[in-house]
Amino acid sequence: MKALVLKDKLELADIPPPVRKPGEALIRIQLAGICNTDLELLRGYMDFAGVPGHEFVGEVVASDDPRWTGRRITGEINAGCGQCRWCLEGLSRHCPKRTVLGIAGHQGAFAEYIVLPEANLHQIPDHVTDRTAVFTEPLAAALEIAEQIHLHPSTRVCVIGDGKLGLLVAEVLHQFCHDVTLVGRHHRKMALVEPSGIVTTPLDQPPVGPFDLVVEASGAATGWELALSLVRPRGTLILKSTFAGKAPLNLAPLVIDEITLIGSRCGPFPPAIQWLASGRIRPEPMIHAVLPLAEYEQALALARSPESLKVLLQIS
Amino acid sequence: MKALVLKDKLELADIPPPVRKPGEALIRIQLAGICNTDLELLRGYMDFAGVPGHEFVGEVVASDDPRWTGRRITGEINAGCGQCRWCLEGLSRHCPKRTVLGIAGHQGAFAEYIVLPEANLHQIPDHVTDRTAVFTEPLAAALEIAEQIHLHPSTRVCVIGDGKLGLLVAEVLHQFCHDVTLVGRHHRKMALVEPSGIVTTPLDQPPVGPFDLVVEASGAATGWELALSLVRPRGTLILKSTFAGKAPLNLAPLVIDEITLIGSRCGPFPPAIQWLASGRIRPEPMIHAVLPLAEYEQALALARSPESLKVLLQIS
Repeated sequence: MKALVLKDKLELADIPPPVRKPGEALIRIQLAGICNTDLELLRGYMDFAGVPGHEFVGEVVASDDPRWTGRRITGEINAGCGQCRWCLEGLSRHCPKRTVLGIAGHQGAFAEYIVLPEANLHQIPDHVTDRTAVFTEPLAAALEIAEQIHLHPSTRVCVIGDGKLGLLVAEVLHQFCHDVTLVGRHHRKMALVEPSGIVTTPLDQPPVGPFDLVVEASGAATGWELALSLVRPRGTLILKSTFAGKAPLNLAPLVIDEITLIGSRCGPFPPAIQWLASGRIRPEPMIHAVLPLAEYEQALALARSPESLKVLLQIS
Repeated sequence: MKALVLKDKLELADIPPPVRKPGEALIRIQLAGICNTDLELLRGYMDFAGVPGHEFVGEVVASDDPRWTGRRITGEINAGCGQCRWCLEGLSRHCPKRTVLGIAGHQGAFAEYIVLPEANLHQIPDHVTDRTAVFTEPLAAALEIAEQIHLHPSTRVCVIGDGKLGLLVAEVLHQFCHDVTLVGRHHRKMALVEPSGIVTTPLDQPPVGPFDLVVEASGAATGWELALSLVRPRGTLILKSTFAGKAPLNLAPLVIDEITLIGSRCGPFPPAIQWLASGRIRPEPMIHAVLPLAEYEQALALARSPESLKVLLQIS
């Protein structure tokens, strides 16, 4: 099968398709999304080697349970051991032995085929387009914030970063909290969320704080400093982006102002699919380009451009 | 009056006593404790100039409310504006206009006299010795953790750092949680908490995690790295020490494991006094030396020694 393989560099290669084990489904990938984590993996994050890609829509072509065969699905990316405390609590995304599709120990979705445990699969309702459904994974990551903390209708929120995840986080939080401000660098990107009633403001004219909740989704050290300056004493700061490598950070303000800092990663798929199916979140305007797998170099270049948002790879 | 004054260096000086304003009490200091924050101020933290010292026992010699005069008291160190949201919620320790005794904008307790708002005063029960009562402020800081998070009886706790605050934190948390481990460098210090049933272990043989709750009270970058390695996914890490200056810290594990990091500073005085009065916490074995104010240089040298714990200044 054709797949993008990262070894020392990324190449389009012809490799054997993955072999399905009992309990797993073999999936033909139709559409896959390029995420900032993919771009970080290509820069050396996690020392990843193999096939990247974890946002996808596909069709099950073989499975133990015949009810899955032929279904259009997406899938949760963490696969746990199934036996530890985390897996038994339904939180296999924290299983210490987990693999992560296209990120750690599991070949990813920039390929014609993948395998995933059947337990990870989620059917996509017929009326939801591939181009909408491919946002399930990042939307789930945005919804994770509502899993972690109590969002009051009156919570005053600021989201820093107008990338794909920042926009989704702002839209999700605005469904819970009436006062949401998005800070970013690109007016064209921020304009996408303005119709929802989200206040937007450029990074060089930051809003007047303090905010009860600040979400750092820019991945930049400047975003961290701004977040600290905007959150109120005893407020909450959500860290939604991984910084690759160590940065010099001053944690004293966290102590003095008794800030709660919460790391936030993957989230729940079923509500994400429901929100996409109901039209509560409409992500398609965030799509910048859809390119065939063979044009991956151009796709990655577009995805790296600060001006662009979501770039998709059409795989079959 | 005699006072220790920090300008470019610390000196014992003769300066005018502070002038009491309406609503304030004039207090003659009897006993004052040297805290790590004082040692940091002397190293330049907060650009402090003036009289340091914020842990004290004293006697009210003048006040608007005659019921205070002659009472033996200690006092909360944050003085708020009295009008903002924080002050109205009883949290003047987060008032943005606050002064902090001996730390920010308010002359401290390494002096014969101080002034403090009467609202900050707490009477000390007659049977509580000065040497016990002087621990009210640091014990309140340890109790602050129980104000911030729900401590379950079964919460598995690790405290990193065997300094004064680390020992108090371990003792306080052990009153809520049955399984508490203290990690430190000094067997003699850690031996003070072993009779309570707290497990102690040297820093070079760290315990086997993961822990639900880890408290970083060492103030060292190594303590931070150890804390991150010991806390479970979705666990809580309390930052109880201020790092002066920026340190290179890797925050990616916070995101991947969805850790909640909470800064923790000053705490509530009334429960601290009650705990000292009831003997629930008996801090006097932590006293390393009591020296007169004139011997402050020796007192500070002792306080700086990694081997020592609490050093007190007898002022009157």
